[in-house]
Amino acid sequence: MRIAQVSPLYESCPPQFYGGTERVVSYLTEELIRQGHEVTLFASGDSQTSGILQSPCELALRLDPQCQDPLPYHFIMLNRVARTADTFDIIHFHTDYLHFSTFASDWRKTLTTMHGRLDLPDLPPVFREFSMMPLVSISHAQRAPVPWANWYGTVHHGLPTSLYAQGSGEGGYLAFIGRICPEKRPDWAVEIARRAGLPLRIAAKVDKADRAYYENKIEPLFEDPLVTFIGEIGESEKGAFLGNAMALLFPIDWPEPFGLAVLEAMANGTPVIACRRGSVPEIVDEGVTGFVVDSIDEAVATIPLAKALDRSAIRRRFEERFSAERMAHDYVMLYSELLQIRRLDPVLTSAVPLAAANAA
Amino acid sequence: MRIAQVSPLYESCPPQFYGGTERVVSYLTEELIRQGHEVTLFASGDSQTSGILQSPCELALRLDPQCQDPLPYHFIMLNRVARTADTFDIIHFHTDYLHFSTFASDWRKTLTTMHGRLDLPDLPPVFREFSMMPLVSISHAQRAPVPWANWYGTVHHGLPTSLYAQGSGEGGYLAFIGRICPEKRPDWAVEIARRAGLPLRIAAKVDKADRAYYENKIEPLFEDPLVTFIGEIGESEKGAFLGNAMALLFPIDWPEPFGLAVLEAMANGTPVIACRRGSVPEIVDEGVTGFVVDSIDEAVATIPLAKALDRSAIRRRFEERFSAERMAHDYVMLYSELLQIRRLDPVLTSAVPLAAANAA
Repeated sequence: MRIAQVSPLYESCPPQFYGGTERVVSYLTEELIRQGHEVTLFASGDSQTSGILQSPCELALRLDPQCQDPLPYHFIMLNRVARTADTFDIIHFHTDYLHFSTFASDWRKTLTTMHGRLDLPDLPPVFREFSMMPLVSISHAQRAPVPWANWYGTVHHGLPTSLYAQGSGEGGYLAFIGRICPEKRPDWAVEIARRAGLPLRIAAKVDKADRAYYENKIEPLFEDPLVTFIGEIGESEKGAFLGNAMALLFPIDWPEPFGLAVLEAMANGTPVIACRRGSVPEIVDEGVTGFVVDSIDEAVATIPLAKALDRSAIRRRFEERFSAERMAHDYVMLYSELLQIRRLDPVLTSAVPLAAANAA
Repeated sequence: MRIAQVSPLYESCPPQFYGGTERVVSYLTEELIRQGHEVTLFASGDSQTSGILQSPCELALRLDPQCQDPLPYHFIMLNRVARTADTFDIIHFHTDYLHFSTFASDWRKTLTTMHGRLDLPDLPPVFREFSMMPLVSISHAQRAPVPWANWYGTVHHGLPTSLYAQGSGEGGYLAFIGRICPEKRPDWAVEIARRAGLPLRIAAKVDKADRAYYENKIEPLFEDPLVTFIGEIGESEKGAFLGNAMALLFPIDWPEPFGLAVLEAMANGTPVIACRRGSVPEIVDEGVTGFVVDSIDEAVATIPLAKALDRSAIRRRFEERFSAERMAHDYVMLYSELLQIRRLDPVLTSAVPLAAANAA
């Protein structure tokens, strides 16, 4: 198949540091190419791909000090996708709703993965208006606020199996990874580690928006001798950090649409102790790859159980359920379905009644 | 002609208070209807028009406490414009670059008035990519950062002549109107009034973004007994406020693309003392409707000269140069030109070479 992957431009594909969406787009792109598809990646100019790269900007916009407004570059990208649409069998968007109005009449050629949380008040009107756009959720839980939207499927993220290898877990510490922000509850991670009397290592970035939260609420907690804060880490350090941990703490307090860190732990054979929010119950296999908990008490109590889990079984389960190969396979199934629909009924495209468009 | 006017959704058309773009769109819409055209106004649901109103949202988004993200509603609007494009001869956009990617292939039906400043680093790439979109500037000065963009004309704003009547100017005060922000230099206005020993009345809103500037730099200046700060005023109070002023101070320190307040003063027969920035030299007729100055000293020195200007001559010049009738007439000329181009060469539309689209 001739496939376009259309990434946001905030981070490169893959990102240098944090950046879930662009990372997944990159893994998907490379795996589709490996499986024999012809892929054009629309992404920032500092991206890496073995396919064809089309870039409306030289640098990832979050890292470009010249960029004040990221929107123009996204519209430039959409225009280039639109002008070359004839050369693709399928155009897979990862750009939220930005492309909806440009591709509304061409929807049968598109698939859109929604990467973010969907419990935002301004999203239902846009899903109603563009009810023809085929959507993919990254977990079943993600759909909860808009179950009526035009979902074609759920595709869980996947990682290349070669990215990490099973670690020993013998570093003698609990791990926390990601971002310092209220939703990720680094304070609960500290509390769990303290009660368990175990060292905690925190690899996380602090965004400008979360600076005050970090300084007022979190930094004082990090003075505990059990806690080591090592800042943001790159891809190359993640394997050792997660692989040596006895468990990953994932004490989230928001409807996490996916949780890539959980997969990264699993890929290293590391068990996960995660709060029952959002996608967590779908991703964690209770008693196999970790435990889903409802309280700090329960999290503390499950640490010995998590530690006792078979790390090769965790790694195996990761390979079965969350490889990039499986992810790409799932998407190719959806692409094929769309091609099939297009073949069967080539005029259905414009059949969305105008009355629906005019309803408020 | 069957004309669509597409407004931003931040304020209603016309706005309840501040909001230059939506105010101009409203004046243009009503005047086009008066001149016999069939106009559909795409704007927030609390807008008023004697034409057909199409609204993707009930309230102006800036006033809607439910709205966290204004973009979805703009895309919904663009989709409704696109689906009904066949019913219009011309679609006139006032939505910055938001519609460019949706209407790139339909550009010959569109005209876009750029209402904002254009000296922003992320605009040139978008003007280059969408080099087919016909653009209108609101002053010649506005074009300076991007003179090479696809300008079809400059159309100065206009006001309905019935909106204001010539005032007496006998209130014995200088006026400042607009927004409290560093670019509008309310501090210079105070300085000018102080040196002239004249009362200054300030009718202005304070945005959240400018709150700190207001409290730290401006509020202390307002303690001067010569200064009266009366906050934000509505349309109905503007006539008395401007009409009774001996002159409007417009001591801007930024490349103002137009400056609607200058027109409002002129419509009330009130002379303007304005700094030589942006559009000011184009709008102010030196020695007739006011004075263009280069320093605070000069501003102070011209107050007696401004006061001595003939207020009916100012009002007359306003009617000649800045009526909504003239503005609508200018736009209709441009609409006709576009229709003409479309008739002469109906295939030119898609002739923008792909190579240009692919150049960075």
